[in-house]
Amino acid sequence: MVNIAVLGYGTVGSGVVEVINTNGTRINQRVGDEIAVKYVLDLRDFPEDPIQEKIVHDYDVILSDPEVKIVVEVMGGIEPAYTFVKSALLAGKSVATSNKALVAKHGAELLSIAQEKNINFLFEASVGGGIPIIRPLNTSLTADEIEEITGILNGTTNYMMTKMFYEGADYDTVLKEAQDNGYAERNPEADVEGYDACRKIAILASLISGQQVDFEDIYCEGITKITTEDMDYARAMDMTIKLLAICKRDGDHLHAIVAPYLLGKEHPLYNVNDVFNAIFVHGNVLGDAMFYGSGAGKLPTASAVVSDVVEEAKNLNRNVMTMWKSDKLELFPIGETKKKFFVRIRGEEAALKAHLESEFGAIEIVKAEGVEGEFGFITGKISENEYEEHAKEFPAILSRIRMEG
Amino acid sequence: MVNIAVLGYGTVGSGVVEVINTNGTRINQRVGDEIAVKYVLDLRDFPEDPIQEKIVHDYDVILSDPEVKIVVEVMGGIEPAYTFVKSALLAGKSVATSNKALVAKHGAELLSIAQEKNINFLFEASVGGGIPIIRPLNTSLTADEIEEITGILNGTTNYMMTKMFYEGADYDTVLKEAQDNGYAERNPEADVEGYDACRKIAILASLISGQQVDFEDIYCEGITKITTEDMDYARAMDMTIKLLAICKRDGDHLHAIVAPYLLGKEHPLYNVNDVFNAIFVHGNVLGDAMFYGSGAGKLPTASAVVSDVVEEAKNLNRNVMTMWKSDKLELFPIGETKKKFFVRIRGEEAALKAHLESEFGAIEIVKAEGVEGEFGFITGKISENEYEEHAKEFPAILSRIRMEG
Repeated sequence: MVNIAVLGYGTVGSGVVEVINTNGTRINQRVGDEIAVKYVLDLRDFPEDPIQEKIVHDYDVILSDPEVKIVVEVMGGIEPAYTFVKSALLAGKSVATSNKALVAKHGAELLSIAQEKNINFLFEASVGGGIPIIRPLNTSLTADEIEEITGILNGTTNYMMTKMFYEGADYDTVLKEAQDNGYAERNPEADVEGYDACRKIAILASLISGQQVDFEDIYCEGITKITTEDMDYARAMDMTIKLLAICKRDGDHLHAIVAPYLLGKEHPLYNVNDVFNAIFVHGNVLGDAMFYGSGAGKLPTASAVVSDVVEEAKNLNRNVMTMWKSDKLELFPIGETKKKFFVRIRGEEAALKAHLESEFGAIEIVKAEGVEGEFGFITGKISENEYEEHAKEFPAILSRIRMEG
Repeated sequence: MVNIAVLGYGTVGSGVVEVINTNGTRINQRVGDEIAVKYVLDLRDFPEDPIQEKIVHDYDVILSDPEVKIVVEVMGGIEPAYTFVKSALLAGKSVATSNKALVAKHGAELLSIAQEKNINFLFEASVGGGIPIIRPLNTSLTADEIEEITGILNGTTNYMMTKMFYEGADYDTVLKEAQDNGYAERNPEADVEGYDACRKIAILASLISGQQVDFEDIYCEGITKITTEDMDYARAMDMTIKLLAICKRDGDHLHAIVAPYLLGKEHPLYNVNDVFNAIFVHGNVLGDAMFYGSGAGKLPTASAVVSDVVEEAKNLNRNVMTMWKSDKLELFPIGETKKKFFVRIRGEEAALKAHLESEFGAIEIVKAEGVEGEFGFITGKISENEYEEHAKEFPAILSRIRMEG
């Protein structure tokens, strides 16, 4: 029997217990042993729930019980999660977590403790919810140099972008809708400002570079300024707008960004709609691949956590995860990365085009039906710094959106 | 150093050598040891190629060399591949193969030898080319009961269906195009009749059921009868037609089929175009997921083979693959599985509808612009046997296509 303890009986924690109850027979077949939930740590009691007999309020009960081989941390946040996880690993217990904040901040240290102790620190659910991506990067895409990872990593904002694109709804309306049906928090900042996606791409960037990528170093722009007019222009260009989290390699450089992007129909991420997530990967020999699925939700997330538990139960005294080193990777400055920009400007094409082209070089004019008193244009591939420098000359510029590809 | 031998210096074999040469440094980091190609078995000589110094013509040289820890079989076909692979495993050498015919036919036996010997028989490239699917099923989707796998598993036919759908080209034209640019063989039977996809879905069905699924038991229908009119109707219904390989669980039953299907826009496989492959998976707790990428091609396939080599080099004396038992799984009879059918029939709706509804129950009429002298209709969900029974009454029926979902 492999005893586990679950830290936190919230949405994901109760999902983990439910998955083990529902699919226990199959799971135990795969492990070749029986997985048993011995403790659930929560401040609350659940008198109506059979889980009550396993509830403990004191973490030391779990930590000091040598029978507990695997600790499942699904509390979220940095503390007390960090203290609990670190002490579990130091006590020789493997840890499975869904906690992206913890992994983004302390992943390197926790991975290195797990390696020293010959146990495992796994975090499949921290990126992409139920979508297998961490383990595929660790054990499947091992023949490749990963040159790009571009993800739709936040379900809330993808739901909002989808509604705005297909239904022409405005930002405030779709935000309210997302809040009403439980996709967005009352304080939606972590989602709509891109902070959630930013932590996730930091984890993926650390994994593929083998070094710590701090999420604070990643340029991060949310979707709060995206308007119905932006979507009108997108449709006119046969494109859509998605909040992308991107990590790209260019020679020895790696850069990362979270921002709304215009995306063409031919891109595999174009059709990833609603609350679904997807991660596009380009390997130098594999070419393009994509992993698609539910990026959040109780059971999909729990499915990923339990798959980590299975892997840990099969490898109780054997470290299986590739590490990343704690020395920090200096990302290539985002200002020097090149891309096309779609720019909206007040005024008439005839009056402005010559001046625009004298600054930006050749541009492509875009008009959207029903959008008056302004027009759009697409620049050539220029750096962010070049864009800013030229844009200074045009106070009439209303907005700019980056273009992928 | 981990010495490997490559059996066959054709497209995939030379790709394997190229991937190891190109990404050797990264690959060796991941293994924690150096992968070295010691021998390449081929009947031919390659005097102009640096590989020549590693070429051997006699398999016994490889088999009897205790330094060779991993054998890469990329010759294709059953013999001599089967004899070579089995003897390698019996000699304690792990095997990585891209050979779907071999895995579909002898997978259970070869997996069991590998398990006995505490080594590995891996075959990531045998399904979906470069797309990670075998290892994710084995180590990532382990918390789920897999209820459905539906794949676009053949790039040639997907290229043809895509051309027919988007360009309105007819079957013969797109087949010739596919042959001209090397996507289809001169004898395209294995692709267009669905045999290739059938072996691949047999492998996936065996994996998720844990028992041998014989490809000969799987109902298999190719794309040779799909016409431009079928595509006209598909467009009229806002659907497309894809060659799908499906394996579904219904309670204790599993059934499998390869056939052209009508697929709606909301299905994740709808947008998988050209030579790309994708595998849709539904787990009882995970929900929907999809894996997308290059289903064939020298380097993507080689990338998958080398990822198996990496896994084997990291687990030289440890069996990591879930087995399937050699006792055969009886598939649920396809005639009893239910679905909607789209049916084309000669004649006028007014004259036929009452008679059709007296047989099929309520039907939905479909008309396609420019298609004269006939019309289409969609049945309710009925079994294949029921369909056949009712269809007998209507000699004017031109064709029927199954509908997914």
